[in-house]
Amino acid sequence: MTVVVPKISTFKGDIDMPHPSINAERLLAHIQDLGTIGRDDRGQLTRLAASDSEKQGRDRLVGWLEVAGLEVVIDRIGNVFGIWQSEDNAGQSPLMLGSHIDTVINAGVYDGCYGVLAGLEVIETLKEQGFEPARPIAVAAFTNEEGVRYAPDMLGSLVHVGGLDIEEALATVGTDGTLLGSELARIGYAGAVEPGFLKPHAYVELHIEQGPVLEREAIAIGAVENLQGISWQRVTIEGVANHAGTTPMAMRCDAGLAAARVGLFLRDHIARSNAPSVATIGTMRFEPDAINVIPSRAVFTVDLRDPDEERLQALEAALAAELRVIIAEEGVTATVERLARFEPVAFDRAIVQMIEASAGARGLKSRRMTSGAGHDAQMIARIAPAAMIFVPSRDGISHNPREHTDPADLIAGANVLLDVVKRIASGR
Amino acid sequence: MTVVVPKISTFKGDIDMPHPSINAERLLAHIQDLGTIGRDDRGQLTRLAASDSEKQGRDRLVGWLEVAGLEVVIDRIGNVFGIWQSEDNAGQSPLMLGSHIDTVINAGVYDGCYGVLAGLEVIETLKEQGFEPARPIAVAAFTNEEGVRYAPDMLGSLVHVGGLDIEEALATVGTDGTLLGSELARIGYAGAVEPGFLKPHAYVELHIEQGPVLEREAIAIGAVENLQGISWQRVTIEGVANHAGTTPMAMRCDAGLAAARVGLFLRDHIARSNAPSVATIGTMRFEPDAINVIPSRAVFTVDLRDPDEERLQALEAALAAELRVIIAEEGVTATVERLARFEPVAFDRAIVQMIEASAGARGLKSRRMTSGAGHDAQMIARIAPAAMIFVPSRDGISHNPREHTDPADLIAGANVLLDVVKRIASGR
Repeated sequence: MTVVVPKISTFKGDIDMPHPSINAERLLAHIQDLGTIGRDDRGQLTRLAASDSEKQGRDRLVGWLEVAGLEVVIDRIGNVFGIWQSEDNAGQSPLMLGSHIDTVINAGVYDGCYGVLAGLEVIETLKEQGFEPARPIAVAAFTNEEGVRYAPDMLGSLVHVGGLDIEEALATVGTDGTLLGSELARIGYAGAVEPGFLKPHAYVELHIEQGPVLEREAIAIGAVENLQGISWQRVTIEGVANHAGTTPMAMRCDAGLAAARVGLFLRDHIARSNAPSVATIGTMRFEPDAINVIPSRAVFTVDLRDPDEERLQALEAALAAELRVIIAEEGVTATVERLARFEPVAFDRAIVQMIEASAGARGLKSRRMTSGAGHDAQMIARIAPAAMIFVPSRDGISHNPREHTDPADLIAGANVLLDVVKRIASGR
Repeated sequence: MTVVVPKISTFKGDIDMPHPSINAERLLAHIQDLGTIGRDDRGQLTRLAASDSEKQGRDRLVGWLEVAGLEVVIDRIGNVFGIWQSEDNAGQSPLMLGSHIDTVINAGVYDGCYGVLAGLEVIETLKEQGFEPARPIAVAAFTNEEGVRYAPDMLGSLVHVGGLDIEEALATVGTDGTLLGSELARIGYAGAVEPGFLKPHAYVELHIEQGPVLEREAIAIGAVENLQGISWQRVTIEGVANHAGTTPMAMRCDAGLAAARVGLFLRDHIARSNAPSVATIGTMRFEPDAINVIPSRAVFTVDLRDPDEERLQALEAALAAELRVIIAEEGVTATVERLARFEPVAFDRAIVQMIEASAGARGLKSRRMTSGAGHDAQMIARIAPAAMIFVPSRDGISHNPREHTDPADLIAGANVLLDVVKRIASGR
């Protein structure tokens, strides 16, 4: 990575003077305003990718990008870019900020939108402050990050980095039977520009944590140094359905108890290993699912995550070994189906250090952390130095109307982004 | 109990001579014949209580009772009785045999029917052999034993012993919205006689085990000395739904893992206690049931059984105590709803001893055992000495087309019933 890390000492002047800051009122108003678009009769917020409601959100965003004097470019997969460049810096690769504005069903207002609108806010602030960046600064809103309507998630950023062919992406069939390409054309966001036209010098994404760590530790800023690898498996355990009253405990092949062992094993194993791994059994189905019949079948999913690929593989291996033990001890069989697998992503150390330094310079507590969720930053990290800034999520709740971040935290995060952008784009 | 136990020595003559036996061919033909009634297009057997198909089964049974020269009586709840009495013994209370001919959905041919048809067979055999019983012998087919169409199960025998008012029973609304009383009238089995008109001297029910014990131990005859008490509870555990990737293991309130602990605790607890208790978690539902969301809710049923009321209460108390531990350790809440509770039933020792002696006299291995399932015998035991004879069930399977008992075992069980009936009705 070629980002030059400016010495903290070069910012000495700022520490004595009040830090120039973003326009908090404008940022919060933008977030709230975008959050009004896509509400149904019951007030629930849903802006699925390339839907009518998302078109309205895109139109609103594009209007704001134009008001800010940015060059708006839409690529063929519908990614929206607002680019600020001058005659002096037009030859340089841009610093890119961004995230997404599509949502899950019955969403909150912060996930994704905060990163896009804070990116816009930072650019507007820098323009107003007369900052002259050494390279263009662009804000991006990537298509279909949530993956609710079209699979895979993070589709727009994946196409941007060349990880998915554009024609294949446009041919994606949604859960509602629609073609993504047709829907983009229908809502007027099938651009002419080839995806990936803008190769960033670096990428910084500001996002709510969607987890409880920052709030619990009363820390304002997360300097996200990596993103967990994800392993999804579906396990089917087959036992024998027998009468709950007439079958002695020692003569049972209980698929439900075998499944229970898996979840408790994973938790104990992780606790013993002292690793940051997480394991979740989020779905569970018993058959025949009758009160007086021993379960003949238990079908459940296992979600394993770890920021280190070797540890993730070791965790998968430990699960497989334990399943063999359970099969032998419980008299059941088990079949495992792999549903998804992503390797961990390491973010750029230099940018992470800048985030920490910027937070510190503003008197904000920060900590390094791992992203447990997927983000567009993990795609852009394939082609450019990238990192993320997290701010606290109340109760760790996300993908839910109760998703909330205090305004003070939203403002602090945007100001740290502002400072990081100045460091990267200052050209020193 | 007033049953006189004849000394084994009085049967000495039988040991030297071939034992008079039931007509095996006729019994097996009856079982197979009744098993043809109630088949659907796919060949699945279903004779729900008071349905059209059960009417056909009742008609067939009544025809056989009449051919055997028995007095057929139908009571107001539709219980069918075939009574063999003479001028000499008509003043005595009858020895009653029986079970039921209603079935579950997609049933086997043995459950219930075997006990009714073996009862008929024993009476026919005794008549043919010129046996002169000291008291009447009756065979009963009780209404709605399975409880699939109308609740509770064992309804007909419950009404017979006065445990449920006849008017209330007739007003029972079925799962299909029908009234039991109307359906009995419709199929012609709403008799005029008040339930309970026949107070038995003793009751013996022959039944397939519906469990694996006899088969595993290669024992032909189960002398059933008691019937388990049953405790059904529904447990709802409430945790907190959080993101499977962003929530560290130590910050979770995982309702699914809390539920997993319950099942494994119960098994371990029973193993440590060395009791014959059984515990089953047969149903399980997670919410929101998403692969990447920690379960906020787990709803499951707990089926606890033990032939001893004090031990059953202790097991219920142990579960309650463990739930308190789990609540404290997992940061969840739990609510418990009682679904059903029946105390254990102790069968009559003298009849159990007769069953053992009769098996032994025929060179058949027997063992005392506990019935894990409910049977009409547990109702009749409220008003008369009662016991059950079990024969092996292949693989312990019941309530299933794969339900099977070898013909040799069916014949052996019926012959033991024959001998027990002779002992009780011999008048010596």
